[in-house]
Amino acid sequence: MRGLYAIIDVETLDRRGLDPLRFAESVLEAGPAALQVRDKVGGARRALARLRSLAPLSARRGVPLFANDRPDLALLSGCDGVHVGQDDLPVALVRSLAAGRERKLRVGLSTHDEAQVKRALEEAPDYLALGPIFATSTKENASPVVGLDALARLAALVRAARPGLPIVAIGGIGMENAARVGEHADAAAVIAALLPEGNGADAWSRVTDRAAALHAAICGVRRAE
Amino acid sequence: MRGLYAIIDVETLDRRGLDPLRFAESVLEAGPAALQVRDKVGGARRALARLRSLAPLSARRGVPLFANDRPDLALLSGCDGVHVGQDDLPVALVRSLAAGRERKLRVGLSTHDEAQVKRALEEAPDYLALGPIFATSTKENASPVVGLDALARLAALVRAARPGLPIVAIGGIGMENAARVGEHADAAAVIAALLPEGNGADAWSRVTDRAAALHAAICGVRRAE
Repeated sequence: MRGLYAIIDVETLDRRGLDPLRFAESVLEAGPAALQVRDKVGGARRALARLRSLAPLSARRGVPLFANDRPDLALLSGCDGVHVGQDDLPVALVRSLAAGRERKLRVGLSTHDEAQVKRALEEAPDYLALGPIFATSTKENASPVVGLDALARLAALVRAARPGLPIVAIGGIGMENAARVGEHADAAAVIAALLPEGNGADAWSRVTDRAAALHAAICGVRRAE
Repeated sequence: MRGLYAIIDVETLDRRGLDPLRFAESVLEAGPAALQVRDKVGGARRALARLRSLAPLSARRGVPLFANDRPDLALLSGCDGVHVGQDDLPVALVRSLAAGRERKLRVGLSTHDEAQVKRALEEAPDYLALGPIFATSTKENASPVVGLDALARLAALVRAARPGLPIVAIGGIGMENAARVGEHADAAAVIAALLPEGNGADAWSRVTDRAAALHAAICGVRRAE
């Protein structure tokens, strides 16, 4: 996993009257490294319908699709994986729900400080998210800002312990800092910096351009070893 | 399923500083027909831990335990089933998550009016909940009150279509109306009328007494055919 890890925050899009599927399509067109859907407010039935619409679109582009929090929705919709937070189900239990099924679930885990990173290494997720790297507006009650220096230090710690485990930096990442993030992290999760200004075809096509630029900014920089 | 369907609303108990497990034990001691845990605010990890503590206690008393909304938590904790609402996952999909497992999931479905009851019959849940029968204080944004007359009419409709399908009445049910509810419904879901006044041993033992009295009030009345 290298490049842009795009997050579709349905609540934010709903509030602005923007169609989450249209947004996802615009982002997918840029070919990001991964796509995650955060969809916590409208009920599981609606969230499942949305993931089921998205799964074939993601698959066609070869972009892995992650549900947020809920392995049941991921399994029922054909997602590639689930992203869980510190209060969500443990990684091993998420995987156990897919036991006996043809398709396994990849599991990503959020961390916010060194202690959580160390515990996460024991949980052995398929990738590890760390943040917020910078101040962020899209998450209420966000943890304290981690900063670039701590990202560099914790990324080195993770690589020493689990070489090859992807690190996804998250929080306040946009064009102005994506390359610096990419020096340390494998991928950068972006929410706000991808949102369209308006609802016209132009606005959507600029979403694709911005996603492509962010992806290239991260991929274009050499990661520190 | 006949008698008291007790609901543990963790948010309400937390707000009053009452231990949900202690409450569940007090209710289980009365031997209700079923126990459901509503636990939507503290994260899935904590909700799962709670269900895992409760499952053996329920099993020992022979009381079926239902998780709310989330089949993943029900499967991982050894619950007997899941209760889903109109915005949650469809009954068939909940069941499909348990496919290939030794233990199936029983699925209950909430309905609030005749149209939903009719659709629910097609979904074929293991029981059907209907309410709010009376005004209720424990659910925000509750649907309009159904009333006893509509309960009688819809219960008859359900029995004609699916003889033997248990009907659980819910909403504003306490000692003053449990018997009248039991004339039409198989079980009565109770939240507020079970809550203890205080935290002492006396208060908990009164919870058991009240649960037993509610259970007896429903079981003691002859159901209309």
